[in-house]
Amino acid sequence: MDRKQLTKAMKAARGLQRAELVIKNANVINVFSEEIRRQDIAIEDGVIVGTGVYHGEREIDLKGMYVMPGFIDSHLHLESTLVTPSELIHQAVKCGTTTFIVDPHESANVSGTDGIDYILEQTEQVPANVYVMMPSCVPATGVDDNGCCLTAEKMSEYHGHKRILGLGEVMDYRSVVEGKPEMLEKLELFRDKVLDGHAPFLSPGDLSAYSLAGIGTDHECVDYEYAMEEIRNGMYVLIREGSAARNLQALVTGIVKHQTDTGHFCFCTDDKHIEDILREGHISHNVREAIRLGIPPVKAIRMATLQAAECYHLRHLGAVAPGYQADLIVVSDLEQMKVERVFYKGQDVEEDQNLSPAVCADKLKHTVHVKPLCEKDLWMHCTGRRQPVIRMVGKEILTREEWAVLPGGIFFEPDETCNKVAVIERHKATGKIGKAAVVGYGIHGGAIASSVSHDSHNLVVIGDNDRDIIALSFLALPVLPEIRILPRGLYRVEDGSFYREDEEQ
Amino acid sequence: MDRKQLTKAMKAARGLQRAELVIKNANVINVFSEEIRRQDIAIEDGVIVGTGVYHGEREIDLKGMYVMPGFIDSHLHLESTLVTPSELIHQAVKCGTTTFIVDPHESANVSGTDGIDYILEQTEQVPANVYVMMPSCVPATGVDDNGCCLTAEKMSEYHGHKRILGLGEVMDYRSVVEGKPEMLEKLELFRDKVLDGHAPFLSPGDLSAYSLAGIGTDHECVDYEYAMEEIRNGMYVLIREGSAARNLQALVTGIVKHQTDTGHFCFCTDDKHIEDILREGHISHNVREAIRLGIPPVKAIRMATLQAAECYHLRHLGAVAPGYQADLIVVSDLEQMKVERVFYKGQDVEEDQNLSPAVCADKLKHTVHVKPLCEKDLWMHCTGRRQPVIRMVGKEILTREEWAVLPGGIFFEPDETCNKVAVIERHKATGKIGKAAVVGYGIHGGAIASSVSHDSHNLVVIGDNDRDIIALSFLALPVLPEIRILPRGLYRVEDGSFYREDEEQ
Repeated sequence: MDRKQLTKAMKAARGLQRAELVIKNANVINVFSEEIRRQDIAIEDGVIVGTGVYHGEREIDLKGMYVMPGFIDSHLHLESTLVTPSELIHQAVKCGTTTFIVDPHESANVSGTDGIDYILEQTEQVPANVYVMMPSCVPATGVDDNGCCLTAEKMSEYHGHKRILGLGEVMDYRSVVEGKPEMLEKLELFRDKVLDGHAPFLSPGDLSAYSLAGIGTDHECVDYEYAMEEIRNGMYVLIREGSAARNLQALVTGIVKHQTDTGHFCFCTDDKHIEDILREGHISHNVREAIRLGIPPVKAIRMATLQAAECYHLRHLGAVAPGYQADLIVVSDLEQMKVERVFYKGQDVEEDQNLSPAVCADKLKHTVHVKPLCEKDLWMHCTGRRQPVIRMVGKEILTREEWAVLPGGIFFEPDETCNKVAVIERHKATGKIGKAAVVGYGIHGGAIASSVSHDSHNLVVIGDNDRDIIALSFLALPVLPEIRILPRGLYRVEDGSFYREDEEQ
Repeated sequence: MDRKQLTKAMKAARGLQRAELVIKNANVINVFSEEIRRQDIAIEDGVIVGTGVYHGEREIDLKGMYVMPGFIDSHLHLESTLVTPSELIHQAVKCGTTTFIVDPHESANVSGTDGIDYILEQTEQVPANVYVMMPSCVPATGVDDNGCCLTAEKMSEYHGHKRILGLGEVMDYRSVVEGKPEMLEKLELFRDKVLDGHAPFLSPGDLSAYSLAGIGTDHECVDYEYAMEEIRNGMYVLIREGSAARNLQALVTGIVKHQTDTGHFCFCTDDKHIEDILREGHISHNVREAIRLGIPPVKAIRMATLQAAECYHLRHLGAVAPGYQADLIVVSDLEQMKVERVFYKGQDVEEDQNLSPAVCADKLKHTVHVKPLCEKDLWMHCTGRRQPVIRMVGKEILTREEWAVLPGGIFFEPDETCNKVAVIERHKATGKIGKAAVVGYGIHGGAIASSVSHDSHNLVVIGDNDRDIIALSFLALPVLPEIRILPRGLYRVEDGSFYREDEEQ
């Protein structure tokens, strides 16, 4: 707001002139006082100027519906939603999420700063606040084969960007606590901003060192006790409810049971696919579930709004009060939390018609470079004695190590019981291949592949025969879309042709 | 902490080497989790590196005493303590206040930026964190006659100073809500920092406009209902307990009665004289009283520590956790809150021997310039009809308007019942004098004067005869010390000599 706008807005706040827009008769959730009060909300230039009794040039009568601040997703990867950034924002904002704190960790690991620029550009014109955390772990660890390397020096070009809030999840915690200079350099660069963590199951001493280095959040908590260890260290815990990882029930149950102060808890989705968002909502789902598990509604809303704004130093977001951006959600029932109307900067998001097809620069395409394989490359040396195999566990993200006896020889013949998986380096055509036997996956007569594979996004192929595995690496690659526009599904190659398996049925 | 220090500190945090100092067996108040846990506190280079089980090069066994973060006085005027800045800090830090957010409003109104520099210089070497808010109202209002004028342009030289946190209490709220350009310029200058308020009894619309302008705190709340209006607007309420103004009982009673969330309340002293500090403590007194009135001890401590740190964006202060400065208070009883030991950056403040006599630059002296008076200057035109007089009200800071009939004539002869008060401009010897009749002050046979008079610090003389009033303006001035070193007391002139009245008894 410039001086002229402020002067005009103050006049409206004082009731000396009508506000541009007044939302009348709302039951306003005040996240500061934790009250719900029947009020009008006066808005000028997309900013709330006052709550109380107001008259506006334009008025919307809500007849007692609840109004709360727009939700903040405090940590997500837009790439993991499996739609383009602007498509995702347009869908998620309808669920009430008006602020997205995104970490382009995946696109950066493939395309470096081009991948970051893509996310920044694609989210420039959307009807939501999109902030970016600079990916800290590109590559994820020292042993990864990824597409790019992002040093502190390269990051420094982004330091002053108004939408970059700090350093993205520092998953390479070992480099932090051991004081590796290349990591400390990144932490120092963003010291005055927010340093996001990724710190499951650190020992108390390591967690202290990690906090001491300035890392202030974590979204990887899966149990209450560990979450409290982080809270005690002054960290914010971002309660995650995504597609694969769902930690809300465990954490919220603990909070309710121990009557823990919720002041340093926020919500995030991390990796949530578009179909799950369409089915159950976005941060609205976290809020609804938290309320169902016993958090008082206003406290749950505060976790999804003001607290995330405080955590990320967003002083203009997260509340319905003078000076706060008019990002508002309207619901008629606090328990069901069914979002009925959303305003971004005082504009109803349903009226936003700016969804344009995503444009993806050429330099972001054609990043898959695989060295031609032959059958020998897939040979595994089996001794005929017990050796480790990968056991799939239901729909879990984690797998289990098992030991089994495979037929001896230089070539292990996979079959339906025991598939073969290969991770094929696909950034620099180095020919590097990792191979293993997988039990419980159950492919019969073919192979499937994906270039979506966190964090380095190498090609993962799994099948019951080497011919199809190789065929995929040759034939499927040119037609496999880039990770950012990959429709979710299972792909199969038979007789040199490429099918989407789940579309056949 | 530089990289080398951090690396060393992380080793200590992980238990790989002994910490410089370990405070053993403390009952540590954790302001994040609101728990009290028996722990050791490991400290390196004045910073807490971990809590848990630690061993140190040096160890202090507290045998179960309570340890909490050092208190923060979120708003005070060092000038009002009536001792020099460093003397005050040395006394107040022994009461547990390790951080002072000071507004040199008084010295700036007399000496401008020289007065601000004096406060900054005098607090450079003290065993406490002293931050300065840039005085916003010099002069206090448009009708004041003070010593200097501080424009936004002059302030801008201080903007980058590492100990200047923002703009001091904006008492000229009218200039804010009416959008006066010279005021908006100051607000814009410090927009990215903290803007302190001073806003008693604004109408809801004016308070909205005031918040909208970015002002984020107020320490002038005297009742709970008004405090809640400010809280609802997102402001922090700094609960004041000073020498003259005491608002804690009213506010805390309301908070306890309504079970209000205390998250946006802090504590301050504003104007507290040294003898009151020595008698009852400093912020420790606010905390003790809040607990006595029903706030749970850990919540009261959190108000005095973490919350004030959050309010003023002091990310390294206010908690006993890794990365926080080792400013610690030791007490053996939480209710009595008798401070038994204080650490500043891990050093026991009792061991600090750096209290050097205050040096006051010559340019700060000799600021009293009065145009010689004659009896005629004190004449008041009385009509013999009812006219307004000032009624003193007990020991209150406020006076009351009364109407009385004074003898008619060009000269009003004061007496013991009806004294005369004169406010004599003393910065630029303009000869401006304000005169009034005062009922209930009760001076007999003399006059007293003070150059401590908020905000402009003109000479205030009160007496029962004009001869002594004039004598004071002539004779007393050269011997009246500067406001910053004025011993508190009553001064009287008789027969051309100058006595401290309360020393005679």
